Amino acid sequence: MYVIMVYDVNPKKVAKVLKKSRKYLNWIQNSVLEGEITEKDFKILKDSVEKILDKNVDTIYWYIMKNSMKPRTYILGESKGKTSNIIV
Amino acid sequence: MYVIMVYDVNPKKVAKVLKKSRKYLNWIQNSVLEGEITEKDFKILKDSVEKILDKNVDTIYWYIMKNSMKPRTYILGESKGKTSNIIV
Repeated sequence: MYVIMVYDVNPKKVAKVLKKSRKYLNWIQNSVLEGEITEKDFKILKDSVEKILDKNVDTIYWYIMKNSMKPRTYILGESKGKTSNIIV
Repeated sequence: MYVIMVYDVNPKKVAKVLKKSRKYLNWIQNSVLEGEITEKDFKILKDSVEKILDKNVDTIYWYIMKNSMKPRTYILGESKGKTSNIIV
């Protein structure tokens, strides 16, 4: 399945969250990763970052694309990370 | 069309970018907005934030969902903004 991950977490935890997430997804820019991931790996990723977070303060969203259809991406400005399917 | 907007911009510009974006999209959390938007409004939003940004430094991604299919959303932690279609 194709996912976009956005996180809003305590700055002290960003490095840990990123380290785990970059095993499965592409870093796009601050707070954003995206990529193709299996259900099994998605569960592993969720469970591993869950242990790091304080759920009263930190937030992670995973947008899971229906039918694994990659969204079109429109970028304004400097593309900092690795992306595909770009229209500029 | 359904879009997810993520921005990585100079902190001094965030307030301006947010002010323009919140006219059309729902604020989700730091750096993230989402929602249904017409092609016409999307153009207006793009053009208006483009004037604010320094394209060598700032970045905005719009993920445009194919067939306007809202993605499923999996949230870990505190949901800070207004979202729909949530599985927790």
